[in-house]
This record gives sequence, structure tokens and C-alpha cells, in this order.
Amino acid sequence: MGQKLGRQTMSMTHPPYIIATATTVGPMEGAGPLQEFYDTILPDDLYGEDSWEKAEAKMLRENVKQAITKAQLTIDVMDVILAGDLLNQLISTNFAVRELDIPFLGLYGACSTMSESLLVGSMLMDGGFLNYAVAAVSSHHNTAERQFRFPTEQGVQRPPISQWTVTGTGASILAKSGTGPRVTCGTIGRVVDLGIKDPNDMGRAMAPAAVDTLIAHFRDTGRDPSYYDAILTGDLGILGRDLVRQMAGQQGFDLSENYNDCGVLVYREDQDVHAGASGCGCSAVVLNGYLYSLLSKGTLRRVLLAATGSLHSPTSYQQKETIPCISHAVAIEMA
Amino acid sequence: MGQKLGRQTMSMTHPPYIIATATTVGPMEGAGPLQEFYDTILPDDLYGEDSWEKAEAKMLRENVKQAITKAQLTIDVMDVILAGDLLNQLISTNFAVRELDIPFLGLYGACSTMSESLLVGSMLMDGGFLNYAVAAVSSHHNTAERQFRFPTEQGVQRPPISQWTVTGTGASILAKSGTGPRVTCGTIGRVVDLGIKDPNDMGRAMAPAAVDTLIAHFRDTGRDPSYYDAILTGDLGILGRDLVRQMAGQQGFDLSENYNDCGVLVYREDQDVHAGASGCGCSAVVLNGYLYSLLSKGTLRRVLLAATGSLHSPTSYQQKETIPCISHAVAIEMA
Repeated sequence: MGQKLGRQTMSMTHPPYIIATATTVGPMEGAGPLQEFYDTILPDDLYGEDSWEKAEAKMLRENVKQAITKAQLTIDVMDVILAGDLLNQLISTNFAVRELDIPFLGLYGACSTMSESLLVGSMLMDGGFLNYAVAAVSSHHNTAERQFRFPTEQGVQRPPISQWTVTGTGASILAKSGTGPRVTCGTIGRVVDLGIKDPNDMGRAMAPAAVDTLIAHFRDTGRDPSYYDAILTGDLGILGRDLVRQMAGQQGFDLSENYNDCGVLVYREDQDVHAGASGCGCSAVVLNGYLYSLLSKGTLRRVLLAATGSLHSPTSYQQKETIPCISHAVAIEMA
Repeated sequence: MGQKLGRQTMSMTHPPYIIATATTVGPMEGAGPLQEFYDTILPDDLYGEDSWEKAEAKMLRENVKQAITKAQLTIDVMDVILAGDLLNQLISTNFAVRELDIPFLGLYGACSTMSESLLVGSMLMDGGFLNYAVAAVSSHHNTAERQFRFPTEQGVQRPPISQWTVTGTGASILAKSGTGPRVTCGTIGRVVDLGIKDPNDMGRAMAPAAVDTLIAHFRDTGRDPSYYDAILTGDLGILGRDLVRQMAGQQGFDLSENYNDCGVLVYREDQDVHAGASGCGCSAVVLNGYLYSLLSKGTLRRVLLAATGSLHSPTSYQQKETIPCISHAVAIEMA
């Protein structure tokens, strides 16, 4: 049985445990600085399939199975899977779940979907409906690029402000009882649009939504940023991260010490991705790989993940609309 | 505090009330047999905007405001809006919610999203997190046709099995206490794909998913179809409805008496829509207009709505994939 704190924050009375996670990434992510934290590094982007879309669906599906196996459970005890991706009509997720016999709720929060799925899953569990749930998302560089921007084969030059969509998928297994870090509360985002129109400038477009949610979280919970060992936004990259620090600072919240962005962590500087990493998979692999490992070891005890999503489409861009954004935050804590 | 019944059904301990609804439809729907049940009938499909996509976002937004007003409440007391639509990246919803200062959870269940949003909202409310919530979806004939099939301006001849996407939006206001029909339980669907490939044949593609969810609902709850005064699927049209009757009958569930499909109710036969109506808006306007009115008057006391969604995309179709489908069911009952 949960309760709402303030305007946007949902607090769990019996915080669900994240009893296991799994991550699968592409070759470029596997060559990045977090390589030791991934369960599976694919040798290529096609994963034995004949299209990148099918490869992404397979990544999501096999990674969910791996997470369930790591939790020493079976598919038939999973009460629900909450999942989504970036592709039109969520085809990666739909085709992945088709092969998994688990009741399915499709979510779309663009690149904020990892925290949306964890938060909704945790609330349904704390509300008494679920014993076990899967929260999962995916993205794939080549499927996202050809849908949102240009086919990668075309070799269009990318502007320096652009980010690189992560080929990766992460899954968390939520359980009513068990061991591991727990989802203690979360803050549901509002749609924030400060008028950025350039679909290459995603980090700066999303930063105001991240700040809006982070400040709502601090206000609703009465927590100061220093409560957390680490505060991570989802995929703002270098430019967006710096803007978050600046905007939060102007509103009296000091993020200079314990704040970073997942999009800054996934690639090495010499991997030439320009402003950083992006995509649903970005926060998903950082959370379910790196952060989950540090939380499980006790190196980190309190983490706030505010995954960030840009809610535009190529159609809305062509119709000269600006870019509405959202961020959902989840607090994950070790007892 | 809720509980799970069987494999897929979620039962509310304190069933949320649907205290108000609103519906807005296009001119063709407004000329149909349910015209007296709609709150707003637009004189044209553009609604004063310069694109159909912007018109759809405005429909969703204004209709949500109308539902909140009908509930004699204000936007600031709404704890969350759970919403979605058919367009890529849910742009109708995202741009609608941008103008509404309500925490937002985006859902994608294709044309099943009305029951998905009602069910998730009801579970979160029964779980103690919410006092008031909005569940809303939209679809627009011209935006859906040009995204999924052909631009309507092209005048492509439609096959006789095709359905007509409803221009319409519906919103329900859920409240922890109040009066009106209540969401007592619901059944989360699984992805079902029996191999249909023709994206014109949506009704028959989705029928097996509807049957799967209906039978799961009856099995999990121990209820017989005769428990309900009316059982409605979402947008199967004439062909899909007949297939549901046949498939359910073969499995021992008699749907000959009290079952119909929302897609059969929206247009008159002489409106020349071929196999019936479809789209998120189809079940949304039938539920929030017609069914809500009959439930409120007590003409119907127990209704099961199993909205149905086809989870393919033009990309998956072009890659020769079959059409995965889903259906989520919600039971709405007057005390």
C-alpha cells in the first residue's frame, strides 16, 4: 500500500526488491569503459537476424530470459512485464514479448522508459497486485538512427552536439521479497518543453525536464541532493549534464558533487560519439549493469535515477513543433 | 490494496469510481448511431489547426479538460494522467499533455490503450497512490491512415475487409471515492499472434488475442459470460466479432447473447466503412459515451470491455513479420 508525497512523488510502504538484472550490449558499448558490468556483449549488431529491428527484439527477449534465469526463477511466475523501446509502435518490445508468455503492459516514455517501467512496476507490486515483475527496455543504434534521423548506411555527418544511441537492453526483476537494492520511491514527470527545435540537440532539450523532476523529487520527499550517493540522469550527454547542474544550481540545488549523466559513462572519449550516449538502452545498461553492481556490493547505498525522454517524432519536427520532454525518477536504496 | 486472481487478472479491494467521462468525435462519428452520447461533435477534422496531428492533440487535450470540468474538479488535483494514441512516439498525447500540468505516464497498447490506461490507473489507485486520475486515448482517421496505410488524399481503394479508424477521443476520471460505475477488476493481456500478415485484416488478426484475454478473465474470476450484461471487444469489426464468437464457442464460452464489438456500433451501415470502426478512439468513445451513460442510468450494471490492439508497424510489415496482437479487459460495475 503506497502513498503520494507532494504533487508528483510515490512512496512505497514495502519497497520492492530488484533481485536480479541483466544487460546485453552491442560491440561498441562492449568496448566502452563499463564493459565489465555487462552480461552479454554481442559480436555484431545483427545478432544472427536479417534486420536490425529483429536483432533489437531478440536482444530484449533473450536479455529478459537471462535476467529471469539470474533470479533463479522461471517465466511462468512473472506476473507482468512492463516494457518499451523507441521504435514506432514499440515493435522491438512487442515482438520480444510475443515469445514470452507473460502478461504485458506496453509503456512509452521515450528514453525515460526504464525508470517509468521500474516505477510503475514497483507501485503495482507495493499495491498488492504482483509478486514478480520484469521491467525492461531496449534501443539499437541502427534502428533508431534510420527512424529518427538518417539511415546509417548513408554516412551523414553528425553535428558535434549530437549523441550516439546505445545498442543495448537492460532488464530488472522486481520481487515483493528477497534481497538486493529496493525501489523506495519515485517521481512521475510532467511534460516540459522550453522550445528547443533541433532534434540533434537532445541533451539540452531534455535537461529542463530532468531538472523539473529532480526538484519535484527533492521538494516532495524533503530530501536534499546530498541524501544520495549518486544522482544520475538518463541520456543528456555532456551538454545536457552541464545544463542540469547550472539550472539546478540556480534554483538552490547543488549537483556539483554527486551528480552525473548515464550518457557520459557509456563510451570512452576516443570512441568519437560527440556529446555522449543516448537511447532507452543508455540508462538501462548503466542501471542494470554498473549501478546495480555497485549497489549490490554496498559501494553505493542510495541512488536516484532520473531517466530522460524526448517525446517528439519526425512528423512533429517536420510540422515545426518544438520538442516536449519528460523525466521520471526512481530512488533505489540498499537497506 | 489489490490482489491477483489466477494468472492474469487483477482485482481491486476498493474499486475506483469513474466519476465522469467526456468524448469528442469527428463529423462522421457524430453522424453515426451513437451521436446522442457524445459531448462534442467537431464540424470538421482539423479543429482550427493546420495539421491533422495537431487537431488530434487538441481533441485529446480539450476533451480531458472537459472531463475534469464535468467531474467538478480542477487540473491541479489530478494525480496522474495515463494516456496514449496510435501515432509514432505518441505525439498526440505528448503534445496534449504538454499543456496540462499533470504528472504523465505514457502507455502504448495500440487500440487496447483505453482499457490498459483504465486498468493501470485503477490498480495504482487501489494501491493507495492516487486520489484522482485521468485515463485517456485518441485516434484520428487521417493521421492514422497516412501513418499506417496511405495518405487519405491519395484516394486508394480500400478492401472490403478494412475498417475505418475513428476520429475520436475519450477520457475517464477515476476517483477513490464518489459515485458512478466502478472498475472492479481487469485482465492484463498476453501477446497473441496466429500468423495473419494482412494489415487490412485487423479484426481477424486481433480476434484471437481478445478470445485469449476473455477466457483468461472468465477462468481467473470464475465468472461465466452470463455474469455480464454486456461484453464488448474494442475494434474487431464485423469479421473479428464473428470470429470471437466462433472461437470462444469452440472453447465452451457462449458469447451469442450479450457480446458485441465497439467497432460495429460507431457507424451506420450506410456510412460505407466496410467491416466497421477501429482505432484507440473506437472503444474510447463507446465506453466513455454510450456505455458510461447506460451504466450511470442503471440500464447496464455489469460491463466487460476488452479493448484490442494490433502491435505491428509498417516497418515490421515490410520486413514480412506477422501481426502480434493484445487485448486488456476491464470490468466496470454499478453497485
